[in-house]
Amino acid sequence: MRKRPILTRRFVRPSFTSLIEKKRDNGEFTQDEIRYIIDSVLDGEMLQHQQAALLMAIYFANMSAQETAILTEEMMFSGEVIDLSTIAKPKIDKYSTGGVGDKTSLVLAPLAMASGIVVPMMCGVEQEYVVNTLDKLSSIPGFKGAMSIEHFQGQLARVGGVIAEQIKELAPADQIFYNLRLETGTIPSLPLITGSVLSKKLAEGAEGLVIDVKWGNGSFIKDLEQAKQLARSMTRVGRSMKRRCVALVTDMNQPLGDSVGTSLEIKEAIQLLKGEGPEDMKELVLKLGMEIVRLAGVAGSTLSAKQTVQRHLADGSALEKLKEVVKAQGGDTSFIDHTEKFPMARYIRKLPAPKRGYLHTISADLIAQGVSILGASQDADGKIDHAVGVSDIKNVGTQVKQGEPLMMIHYNDEAKLEQALELFKSSYRLAPKRPVPPPLVVERVA
Amino acid sequence: MRKRPILTRRFVRPSFTSLIEKKRDNGEFTQDEIRYIIDSVLDGEMLQHQQAALLMAIYFANMSAQETAILTEEMMFSGEVIDLSTIAKPKIDKYSTGGVGDKTSLVLAPLAMASGIVVPMMCGVEQEYVVNTLDKLSSIPGFKGAMSIEHFQGQLARVGGVIAEQIKELAPADQIFYNLRLETGTIPSLPLITGSVLSKKLAEGAEGLVIDVKWGNGSFIKDLEQAKQLARSMTRVGRSMKRRCVALVTDMNQPLGDSVGTSLEIKEAIQLLKGEGPEDMKELVLKLGMEIVRLAGVAGSTLSAKQTVQRHLADGSALEKLKEVVKAQGGDTSFIDHTEKFPMARYIRKLPAPKRGYLHTISADLIAQGVSILGASQDADGKIDHAVGVSDIKNVGTQVKQGEPLMMIHYNDEAKLEQALELFKSSYRLAPKRPVPPPLVVERVA
Repeated sequence: MRKRPILTRRFVRPSFTSLIEKKRDNGEFTQDEIRYIIDSVLDGEMLQHQQAALLMAIYFANMSAQETAILTEEMMFSGEVIDLSTIAKPKIDKYSTGGVGDKTSLVLAPLAMASGIVVPMMCGVEQEYVVNTLDKLSSIPGFKGAMSIEHFQGQLARVGGVIAEQIKELAPADQIFYNLRLETGTIPSLPLITGSVLSKKLAEGAEGLVIDVKWGNGSFIKDLEQAKQLARSMTRVGRSMKRRCVALVTDMNQPLGDSVGTSLEIKEAIQLLKGEGPEDMKELVLKLGMEIVRLAGVAGSTLSAKQTVQRHLADGSALEKLKEVVKAQGGDTSFIDHTEKFPMARYIRKLPAPKRGYLHTISADLIAQGVSILGASQDADGKIDHAVGVSDIKNVGTQVKQGEPLMMIHYNDEAKLEQALELFKSSYRLAPKRPVPPPLVVERVA
Repeated sequence: MRKRPILTRRFVRPSFTSLIEKKRDNGEFTQDEIRYIIDSVLDGEMLQHQQAALLMAIYFANMSAQETAILTEEMMFSGEVIDLSTIAKPKIDKYSTGGVGDKTSLVLAPLAMASGIVVPMMCGVEQEYVVNTLDKLSSIPGFKGAMSIEHFQGQLARVGGVIAEQIKELAPADQIFYNLRLETGTIPSLPLITGSVLSKKLAEGAEGLVIDVKWGNGSFIKDLEQAKQLARSMTRVGRSMKRRCVALVTDMNQPLGDSVGTSLEIKEAIQLLKGEGPEDMKELVLKLGMEIVRLAGVAGSTLSAKQTVQRHLADGSALEKLKEVVKAQGGDTSFIDHTEKFPMARYIRKLPAPKRGYLHTISADLIAQGVSILGASQDADGKIDHAVGVSDIKNVGTQVKQGEPLMMIHYNDEAKLEQALELFKSSYRLAPKRPVPPPLVVERVA
């Protein structure tokens, strides 16, 4: 664990107002200025309303690549930085900006481990209504995501992988900024997103990072161009901090895979770890998996990367690694071997197509919100209904007859279904002509 | 005093975050939304950091003319609105955005009163280092600017004019916003300036307002185009609130008149009330005075307006009105009759021209800061040195020989002089060619 850098001795502390004005007028902050801001955010010298004004000024006036890199580094050094240098194996993490039905992390972490890569993964809450990885894992009885830094390091050395909750000691400046951003409309700022994500990710001790930047109606990034910019911003900052970084910009204009929910998604992830499951998820797992093994140096060529990924899915070694992680974190692995042990919802009903036609668009965000209403997100008491969700989701481009199921709804409560149904119904658009489905992977940024 | 309007019954209260996001994305607020924001600022429901983010979003995304008018009205109704309808005479106020050496209010308020106009004037602190009208008046022993609304109304009915401190009960939402703007770099926003100034001014009960928008190095508006926009914004909002409004955009690229200080400026104002004094001030008093009497309907034509102003300066009736106001507010009027009673500074020295040439530019802001350092602004204990300042200021375009005084410095403290001198020296630029002095009145907006 490294120590937080200190301000240059000759640095004259400006007033916070003048710093806000500088950014407001499109000025570029120096390293000392950003360091001073982060210091002052941490010790409470810079007041919340000044922080908020600064964040909004950054939203509008932006930050240069260099400023963003400095911001990320200073935020990273605002807390503990985990040192994994005693572990000899390559250490790579994977991050997704968050998507509906996205269970790739559950597949890719064990897959990378099976390929001889150490995976120090911490999961945050990316988007309010999107079911996050740890909520999914919590459907396995006994599984715990919360741990100390010592435990995190220990499990990495012992098992080679962790899927943990964000540890509070890492990048505390981000916690402060993030909570403020949530309340002040300053979430969608490229430099702030970059700083927030990478300050935490790089503090985990990984040498490399594969990033999945999602764009579309189910992502908080609705605009493709912005997603591309974010991918470039993150890889640029990663490189400037001497980490290997690759980003894929991928489609999030319909739910990924067959299912959305907690145990429903775990079950789909287990399928995928056996080399089975829906095509879109298989493609995404393959593409991201290949990036991970290449970034780690485990595979040199594209072909050998593909073979490595496919081998560890086919031979069951990736699935074995998921069990090792679940076991290390207290979970009952018999649920992985016997997925029928996951509790089923009391009711399952179809969402019928209102007319014949081609599935033209699916609003992934509305489906996610509906699933959240069914109970798949933590309620006021932190409780999750692990049985609910949707499955057998038909993809954009599929032809359906009137009355044919667009998806199956798993629910336990009629009143909640009522509410969710409104969202599910309005999430689908049918059209007489077959649409051209958008490509899953739009761009690779390295 | 009117009652604060309430929200439309059907209005669904949005989250503050969504309101910030709406403005961030260039949305236009409805009347209910602005009313809800002001309500929530007043009762503390909207937190300071959300207010700050909103103000910065307004800085960048601006407000339409209609939004600005609504904001102004809602801010006005956030507190008491003084009703002067029982006073039959026309009620006109004058406002300046603030300038160095600007003592026009001290001349125009009594001049308007002499013309049969009631002047309900409250003075705020426009700019940190600029000596404000009340600090100038406080050089007259006994004078008090602080008063209650009842006192304010009573004196208006009795004397026909007041020069008072801003009364706290008026536009309290502005107080909250203004303090926040000072700390968050959101002072220079046209809709926020308009709302801040007019919400207070229109709550005073005046039917009309003559506004002096200053641009240049001695104004907080450095840019002429911005000054013109502000003039248009203020008159537009004034009109939409059914008040008569005229604005002049005037030059503030050099100090106004001969002197800067407190009693030094009072003495110059008394000269002007006798029809004497420096040409630039005489011109400004005439132009603004003509606007006031025409706005009040006291004079119809330009010629008759000019004659009205000149008559009341020549016959001593304007000076008499100043004495009435000073007397009503507890001041010793013998200082007005015998200006030699004002204490003199211990030392007076010249600022010599470093070489021969024409006065090319004068940084009015540096002169104001120097005068402030000499002691003309309130110190930590609220004390003002009324004797200090500068006088005999030479104007841009004047030819000087080496060693000839650029101005006279009145001071009581050698150490302070030392500091101020640096600013005074660097405020002057001499050039071999005669410059074209900028016009005093640039534009009239009605």
